[in-house]
Amino acid sequence: MAYYIGVDIGGTNLKAGVVSEAGEIAGEASVPTGADRPQDVVLEDIISAVRSSIEAAKVDMKDIRGIGMGSPGMIEPDKGIVIYNNNLGWKDFHIGEKMSAVFGIPARLENDADAAALGEVVAGSAKGAKSAMIITLGTGVGSGYVLDGKIFRGCEFGHMVIKHGGRQCTCGRKGCFESYCSATGLINMTKEAIAENPSGILAGIAEREGSVSGHTVFVAAEQGDENAAKLIDEYTGYLACGLANLINGLQPEVISIGGGIGKQGERLLVPLREKVKAEVYKGLPVPKIVSCTLGYKAGLIGAAMAAR
Amino acid sequence: MAYYIGVDIGGTNLKAGVVSEAGEIAGEASVPTGADRPQDVVLEDIISAVRSSIEAAKVDMKDIRGIGMGSPGMIEPDKGIVIYNNNLGWKDFHIGEKMSAVFGIPARLENDADAAALGEVVAGSAKGAKSAMIITLGTGVGSGYVLDGKIFRGCEFGHMVIKHGGRQCTCGRKGCFESYCSATGLINMTKEAIAENPSGILAGIAEREGSVSGHTVFVAAEQGDENAAKLIDEYTGYLACGLANLINGLQPEVISIGGGIGKQGERLLVPLREKVKAEVYKGLPVPKIVSCTLGYKAGLIGAAMAAR
Repeated sequence: MAYYIGVDIGGTNLKAGVVSEAGEIAGEASVPTGADRPQDVVLEDIISAVRSSIEAAKVDMKDIRGIGMGSPGMIEPDKGIVIYNNNLGWKDFHIGEKMSAVFGIPARLENDADAAALGEVVAGSAKGAKSAMIITLGTGVGSGYVLDGKIFRGCEFGHMVIKHGGRQCTCGRKGCFESYCSATGLINMTKEAIAENPSGILAGIAEREGSVSGHTVFVAAEQGDENAAKLIDEYTGYLACGLANLINGLQPEVISIGGGIGKQGERLLVPLREKVKAEVYKGLPVPKIVSCTLGYKAGLIGAAMAAR
Repeated sequence: MAYYIGVDIGGTNLKAGVVSEAGEIAGEASVPTGADRPQDVVLEDIISAVRSSIEAAKVDMKDIRGIGMGSPGMIEPDKGIVIYNNNLGWKDFHIGEKMSAVFGIPARLENDADAAALGEVVAGSAKGAKSAMIITLGTGVGSGYVLDGKIFRGCEFGHMVIKHGGRQCTCGRKGCFESYCSATGLINMTKEAIAENPSGILAGIAEREGSVSGHTVFVAAEQGDENAAKLIDEYTGYLACGLANLINGLQPEVISIGGGIGKQGERLLVPLREKVKAEVYKGLPVPKIVSCTLGYKAGLIGAAMAAR
């Protein structure tokens, strides 16, 4: 049986896993990234993590056909080079070449969000879809598009303006999908709602929890807070707007929602599906909208599968 | 030398052309569509137009390798079926099969805007581009995406909302790219500006011309009308917003602007390029923004090249 190694290069942890052709993890390992160290020192730890994952998987090296890596930052996938990674302090790092030389097998580099999207299509929420868009609602809004089982590189719609002249985005534009629909965007909207109504249920929950998260407004709505319900209505309205743009534009068969907000599951998805359906261009099929199911494993599995 | 036949199925005219492998038209023919007639009768005229174009080209039938057709409406490209075409009154029309049977060569069906986009990439404004987005600013906003020399089917961003809660679009959504940036959108904005200032230069030109077109505001601006200049600024702002969304999302190497508004050339493109540049995500290359150059020939050439 053929196996592939997946590596997820995170700002906090480096994860490696041995993945079967079918997308199952046979063994994995994780080490802290130690991002303040020189890139060649971090590379040594990536190599050790890979070796540990091979040991854990009890798989013979001769059955491993390739290494796939998912990295944030600016990359040159075809050449296996991380051009620039702000969080890790990496510059012009020829990691593909180096990993390939150490293990004697081909190495492949992809954007980490793209790799995670491929993971969800091979083994997770969008399994078997002919085309799937994975939307990650975290600090920012990430998007990954997988078409006919392959990563469609560079599909990145977080900085698509959905409200001309709207909220200031970190990118410089105003009204980006990300500025409304990231966890950060929802937290900002929640804080504004609390400031407007400091004695409401929403404010009470935020006080008890000590901070506002993307979760706060959903808890308050479940406790019957009308302001929270209104805020969820507004938030899902913006989210539906962005998703309907992507559906009208590219017609994915499945949309999987990941990241912190994706964990809300059906409390998010029920109102979202209804709003999306009303906005999709007449005659186009409305895609399935689901939550991502693989968590951090999506990145490992997808990176490995990119090496197939 | 190998040739391909291109057919452009328009609501007003049916055009056919014999096109060389290099994308040059060797001969062409055009007949009125007569859209009120039954589809099989129209088909006879398409067949005659193709025969006339072959005669005009003086090309031997044995050198013609395939027929490509561009059709509006809802189509099933892989099966060569026009599922539904409102303007022509076509329903479930297996045109691919029929044309292939008549001429004894393979036939291919594509969306007409997609075909025109391919034409611009093979032989026009985006010649040789690895990836190009063709944006048609006419009655509506059309988009066609060509990647690695192939049509990327179904890329249709006219109904991407760029202003949540904005102008009512014919599709039912509010604030679509099309509702601001089509020729129709610009005409609506021009009419509003005239109503606000009925004694201005803009109003005078509209009166002399007897109607408002997508051209009116550009003529008025050239004559020094400040309101017209402001309107062009607003219009190119919306257009830049939509284009920057597509650039951030898909990173085309070239964007070609076609349709009625595309004919404005540099008076449109100079302010547009400046605004787009300011909105593209930092670090991404800014694509070349140009006018389409092939006019109606793009549809013929592209349809033929789709049959390669």
